[in-house]
Amino acid sequence: MTETNNIDQEDSPTPLQQIIYLLRKYKLVEGLVNLQENTDDPSLNESAVQQQNLTELQVFLDQLHPADIAHILEALPLEDRLLIWSLIKTDRDGEVLLETSDAVRATLITDMGNHELVAATEYLDADEIADLAPDLPQEVMDNVFSSLPIEEREQLRAAMSYPEDSVGALMDFDVITIREDVRLEVVLRYLRRLEELPDHTDQLFIVDRDEQLKGVLLINRLLVSDPDTLVAEVMTKEMIKLRPNAIAQQAANAFERYDLVSASVVDDNNKLLGRVTVNAVIDYIRETAENEALNLAGLSEEEDLFAPVLKSVKNRWGWLAINLVTAFIASRVIGLFEDSIEKLVALAALMPIIAGIGGNSGNQTITMIVRALALDQIDTSSAWKLITKEVGVSIVNGLLWGTVVGLFTFAIYQNAELGLVMTLAMTLNLLLAALLGVIIPLTLRKFGRDPALGSSVMITAVTDSGGFFIFLGLATFFLL
Amino acid sequence: MTETNNIDQEDSPTPLQQIIYLLRKYKLVEGLVNLQENTDDPSLNESAVQQQNLTELQVFLDQLHPADIAHILEALPLEDRLLIWSLIKTDRDGEVLLETSDAVRATLITDMGNHELVAATEYLDADEIADLAPDLPQEVMDNVFSSLPIEEREQLRAAMSYPEDSVGALMDFDVITIREDVRLEVVLRYLRRLEELPDHTDQLFIVDRDEQLKGVLLINRLLVSDPDTLVAEVMTKEMIKLRPNAIAQQAANAFERYDLVSASVVDDNNKLLGRVTVNAVIDYIRETAENEALNLAGLSEEEDLFAPVLKSVKNRWGWLAINLVTAFIASRVIGLFEDSIEKLVALAALMPIIAGIGGNSGNQTITMIVRALALDQIDTSSAWKLITKEVGVSIVNGLLWGTVVGLFTFAIYQNAELGLVMTLAMTLNLLLAALLGVIIPLTLRKFGRDPALGSSVMITAVTDSGGFFIFLGLATFFLL
Repeated sequence: MTETNNIDQEDSPTPLQQIIYLLRKYKLVEGLVNLQENTDDPSLNESAVQQQNLTELQVFLDQLHPADIAHILEALPLEDRLLIWSLIKTDRDGEVLLETSDAVRATLITDMGNHELVAATEYLDADEIADLAPDLPQEVMDNVFSSLPIEEREQLRAAMSYPEDSVGALMDFDVITIREDVRLEVVLRYLRRLEELPDHTDQLFIVDRDEQLKGVLLINRLLVSDPDTLVAEVMTKEMIKLRPNAIAQQAANAFERYDLVSASVVDDNNKLLGRVTVNAVIDYIRETAENEALNLAGLSEEEDLFAPVLKSVKNRWGWLAINLVTAFIASRVIGLFEDSIEKLVALAALMPIIAGIGGNSGNQTITMIVRALALDQIDTSSAWKLITKEVGVSIVNGLLWGTVVGLFTFAIYQNAELGLVMTLAMTLNLLLAALLGVIIPLTLRKFGRDPALGSSVMITAVTDSGGFFIFLGLATFFLL
Repeated sequence: MTETNNIDQEDSPTPLQQIIYLLRKYKLVEGLVNLQENTDDPSLNESAVQQQNLTELQVFLDQLHPADIAHILEALPLEDRLLIWSLIKTDRDGEVLLETSDAVRATLITDMGNHELVAATEYLDADEIADLAPDLPQEVMDNVFSSLPIEEREQLRAAMSYPEDSVGALMDFDVITIREDVRLEVVLRYLRRLEELPDHTDQLFIVDRDEQLKGVLLINRLLVSDPDTLVAEVMTKEMIKLRPNAIAQQAANAFERYDLVSASVVDDNNKLLGRVTVNAVIDYIRETAENEALNLAGLSEEEDLFAPVLKSVKNRWGWLAINLVTAFIASRVIGLFEDSIEKLVALAALMPIIAGIGGNSGNQTITMIVRALALDQIDTSSAWKLITKEVGVSIVNGLLWGTVVGLFTFAIYQNAELGLVMTLAMTLNLLLAALLGVIIPLTLRKFGRDPALGSSVMITAVTDSGGFFIFLGLATFFLL
């Protein structure tokens, strides 16, 4: 972050563009050097130019924020990525690793020796090391553990014990604690003795001798109060206390609703364990939204843009296999009606319309319900109201769009009965989509499953097979 | 937020559950009162009980945070929602309105008189009024304008002048400014004279006589420095400066990357206009992720869970219409091959497999590319690398899954040639999906369109119609 780091200057090159420019310059000369080695012409000392280009790259990298470096590494193909990575100073390696996506982090860690990895963790806090731990070799973690002072070792052990999506995984240990029976002047003097305060310190935590959390002193309160006041007089007793084993989403909801910068984490005995800060929450919100989008699209996890082909194939494997199974089932449903299709081949051309619109409509319903479930806005009493509403919407949509497809069918095939069957099939399939669009996520939820996962695949499977069955069944019954 | 507001206590009832319980109690007695009016039996004074229940509800609501009230209103059917809304004190109406979703806010505003609406804005800052402005009747806004002091009127005018997705729309005016030539002691005294500091004040802004932004004094720095120091000695000159007309996403990226709590907003002349705080950014990130998910599912906007049927139909209209058009096109593509299907009816049962898997695969590619574009991680030099990779993935997947469907086909129809056509068609359709999965978002971006909007519909249209054409075309050519 330099003074000129004004992110609004759209016409000036981004750090990524500058790196790409410097990389090209470097590689161009490298090409010349290689050429020169073959021709043995020492007229130009290319390798000095080369060295200068490398230095230029390094100087530029040194002034970038770790998050910007991570962003650049993610955007570069593997070869360039590792070249840039080798230019990052060891004392910043850890911070950069923290900021990269899991997939890209793996490519960087693979490139490092165990010794380098241990060195990289030296500049990190215990909670940060815990974030990297799943990606580090066991040997490295053993070394890290034994090199830590006892207090940090205990913190690291605690941080690593919380599951990934828990409040504990978002927690850090950078809390400043004070006693309630001192004057604010004493607090101010105490703070001045610290060289700096932890980032996102918007409150000091007030604990008693047993480390029980009694309240918080907001920094904003500290600043506007008379220094002669006692902490107890201006402390806030109303506060958010998080539990380390609660799901992280609860912390995210609290931060979003109550506009927090930090919040305390306490154990069952009200003992202060640490705090969660808003930057950890933002990262969590982003990642969750990201994963949801990836899952919807059928990607198991975030993918390195430049991952090797086989690795990508594996990442996309699971959902394609599931979809293939549902496609096979739909295919067999159609197979049941091959005689009908043989007699009236127009059915084959028309059936995807019924299935497709049913799938779209079902996904609209499911998205709404899943969202409301995530926000805890549906209980049993409202479930019936929702089903009634969705059924109403599907009947209106069914008759409306059903009439459109009916007219389309009549226009093309000059067959009024076929048009009516289309209208009826469309209405019934949208009705099916509406009912299951409410029932599927509610049922998943009831059995303790995440309704966001798989709902969409299931509703599409139902509206495909169901749509084919309804349409071909009606056609066979009424037309043949 | 009370002291017991420990959001981890999962077994204790949520505020929503408590409200629903209190509402039921209230409505039960209401039923009795109505019954009693008919029987003219004054033995029990039900309406006193009724009044007591209402008071109980009101007391409970008074202690809830506005965000919690908004959450409850969103989860209640219209009738209950308006009953609860009528119990909220006027001085909190504005804050609650700010926290509700657009759709639910509209139902609340419709229920209020113009006088009430003007009163509700009295407790809001200019930037908050600007957030509500699009939903308020013109007459109300006129009244609000004329009732504001001049400075706030100017702020409101400024805040309303920025487009919805700009940094300006996230900005507030709660900045504390100081001069660089004073001692920290003076700053501390100045702060103490203020009764309270604005939320999220993690830095004071240092301006000169022309309101030019010279730097910031971090509160954390202020607290640890000697009071005798000059502001100029401890101020930070390296800082993020946002421009009001930049897109809001830039601010979100900066807050996420640099872990900010607040950031300055300056005009082209470096004059301080206001600041953006992390809570506004979190709301923006959530809403953006939300809208993306809704758009993917084909909902135009966030929908009130209990919206009237016709309103919901309208919200879902647009995407269904577009999908219907693409379904019609796919249907006509099949129509071209009706003769082939008549001769070999198995084609009808098999074709949805090719189209379906192609659509899934294309959506996987597109999701990855759209995400990388949003993070500015793709330039022209990497585009080719990406196409090569996606083509590689699609060939592997095509041969793999193509073989599976080929064997499936052979098992069912005992026709080896038909199986081979399936394998070939699957490979070609996945190839088409991969190419267009990269090309469509890059092209949309090139023409200045948002690649997240419509990419998914387009790729599905291509892989449906394209898949049918490839499969039926190959079958006609090789088998008939």
